[in-house]
Amino acid sequence: MYYKQFNIKQLVDKKKMHFCSRMQVFTKEGLYKISVDIFQSMGATEDDAEQAAEVLTSADIRGVDSHGVSRLTGYVALWEAGRINMTPKVKIIREHKSTFTIDGDSGLGLVVAPKAMKIAIDRAKLYGSGWGAIQNSNHFGIAGYHAMMALPHDMIGMAMTNATPFIPPTHSKEAMLGTNPIAYAFPAGKENPLVIDLATASVARGKIEIARREGKEIPKGWMVDKHGNTSQNVDELKDGGMLTPLGSLEELSSHKGYALGGLVDVLTGVLSGANYGKWVPPFVSFLPLLPNLPGKGLGHFVGAMEIEGFRDTSEFKESMDHWIQSFKGAKRVTENQQVYVPGEKEYLTEAKRNTNGIPLNDKVVEDLEGLKKKFGV
Amino acid sequence: MYYKQFNIKQLVDKKKMHFCSRMQVFTKEGLYKISVDIFQSMGATEDDAEQAAEVLTSADIRGVDSHGVSRLTGYVALWEAGRINMTPKVKIIREHKSTFTIDGDSGLGLVVAPKAMKIAIDRAKLYGSGWGAIQNSNHFGIAGYHAMMALPHDMIGMAMTNATPFIPPTHSKEAMLGTNPIAYAFPAGKENPLVIDLATASVARGKIEIARREGKEIPKGWMVDKHGNTSQNVDELKDGGMLTPLGSLEELSSHKGYALGGLVDVLTGVLSGANYGKWVPPFVSFLPLLPNLPGKGLGHFVGAMEIEGFRDTSEFKESMDHWIQSFKGAKRVTENQQVYVPGEKEYLTEAKRNTNGIPLNDKVVEDLEGLKKKFGV
Repeated sequence: MYYKQFNIKQLVDKKKMHFCSRMQVFTKEGLYKISVDIFQSMGATEDDAEQAAEVLTSADIRGVDSHGVSRLTGYVALWEAGRINMTPKVKIIREHKSTFTIDGDSGLGLVVAPKAMKIAIDRAKLYGSGWGAIQNSNHFGIAGYHAMMALPHDMIGMAMTNATPFIPPTHSKEAMLGTNPIAYAFPAGKENPLVIDLATASVARGKIEIARREGKEIPKGWMVDKHGNTSQNVDELKDGGMLTPLGSLEELSSHKGYALGGLVDVLTGVLSGANYGKWVPPFVSFLPLLPNLPGKGLGHFVGAMEIEGFRDTSEFKESMDHWIQSFKGAKRVTENQQVYVPGEKEYLTEAKRNTNGIPLNDKVVEDLEGLKKKFGV
Repeated sequence: MYYKQFNIKQLVDKKKMHFCSRMQVFTKEGLYKISVDIFQSMGATEDDAEQAAEVLTSADIRGVDSHGVSRLTGYVALWEAGRINMTPKVKIIREHKSTFTIDGDSGLGLVVAPKAMKIAIDRAKLYGSGWGAIQNSNHFGIAGYHAMMALPHDMIGMAMTNATPFIPPTHSKEAMLGTNPIAYAFPAGKENPLVIDLATASVARGKIEIARREGKEIPKGWMVDKHGNTSQNVDELKDGGMLTPLGSLEELSSHKGYALGGLVDVLTGVLSGANYGKWVPPFVSFLPLLPNLPGKGLGHFVGAMEIEGFRDTSEFKESMDHWIQSFKGAKRVTENQQVYVPGEKEYLTEAKRNTNGIPLNDKVVEDLEGLKKKFGV
């Protein structure tokens, strides 16, 4: 057994747990070891397996449960469908000093994106900044992980990806964009780094699924039905329903979320030579690829900028601390509701889970057990 | 007279006009000439006056009326309050190849930002990309103008700015962020360039003002009262009311709009050494600066990336055309509601106004006449 059982009452992360009848609790190390074993069984080198496992379990420890080990079965299914190459030769196919394009050779995004990010960091050391467009990749886990790779180098990190089409543009009923996240990480001094990591959808699919399981009503604006009309009937999500762009409703500026999702799609898909729009390969293996693909695989865009090229690093970090403290200390609407800075909740969850462990619901544990049996690890 | 009168019935841009009892119609050239004269009367060099006038009237011709010549009285008032230096020595104060920081010397942002953008473009020619943080500046007009400067160079352009604090973070009732816009411009082939230019507020203040004038109800989510609570009472905007971050309501992910506004504030304010958060100098001259300013003036962040560093330019443009056509052609919710791509409406307005002229309402015309009299131009 790779994991340690905790007393369920120790767990305070109720928000993530309340829909689960039963939970089991794991350490990050335990989940990491399982993940490494599974990726190696799929054919990954030790280095690649460790890198992929690190990205996944970083999501789990930070509370982004939707992007952690719960995704392992999905990656395995994509690999079985022949859509993931576990021994990719990731290479630079074009470059000009601070900019470059990477061919991910159909590898796991969990492996391809960190390789690209390392190159971006190296370029930033040489030229002040480094920017990589990545084609021919797959789902890369949490965007924040890749952006945060820049932090130990006193750099600002950036990562974006396109994703399974599931969002129609304003006035459309056709899924043309994925949740296309944008992540930026800024180093600070005494404070934790400022980590912005947001999907350009109004809410995650998972939030609607939870509401469905619990029979709860969802707010107007979270989803549309297959005709593109606002719907609060959560059952329609499985009948052609779709998510909405950030902004939710036209009257609340859904066109801005659409523009942001489009921005990510162009930088990750068009600029790299990957697929874009409705042609982005879906994460689920049972959905076929569309005919006449305009590019290769899924696209990412990553970047790093050295603080020193703009400002004295220690001055910058002091100002970041001041920025963070001023926002945390902003006057509250009600005293019992804290003002958080982006990424703060994830750092709080990480601290909690480092002590109390990572709770996984029975379905995820069952899936993991299934994978262990399948690969005999 | 610098302007030409058109028959009011020719004007089809009803959306922008419906609140005006009377309109007068101008050519871009006419408004440009008035603006150049006024900026020169304030002490600007001919070059600077022409640059500033070009930014302003580009807003007018594109239909962004809130950022065109209607702002002239505001710039004049800030100048009279001693907060704008009309003869700035704009200089690079730090640099490392693709990255640099500019001191705007308290100049008009309309002049400072294009200078920074030109340097970014030059750096992109040398290093693939160029990124400039700007401190000690002022309001820079429409973000899209600066991003679009990259287009003739076959580059992707980017521009951001922080702005008058008028948005509280989620759970706060204190205005900590401005409308902090994000603009990106992508060259295309046969299609118009893709121009993304969005404020990270849910809606513009102007939309609420129009509703107030017309006695119309506004949707829930557009604003909060001085206590930070959602309000649909438009009169409260003048009694401590504030805008909301993109996402509008907490349940519709206002924290994402807050994070995006924060992202812009850190890149423009903290990275450059400008002011940030609640300390950003307000556009209106009658509001005093807060004590203990943490930086200098207002901050911008601009950038340019050469397409060639990532992909063959002609291939990229072909893909952009395909991207744009596929989004315009996405299945519609209702046949009579078109799916637009970002920036498309502005290009349509520009074509219309090039033919029919730029309508200005009586208040703006009166203000312009006042300025002409004041400066004897």
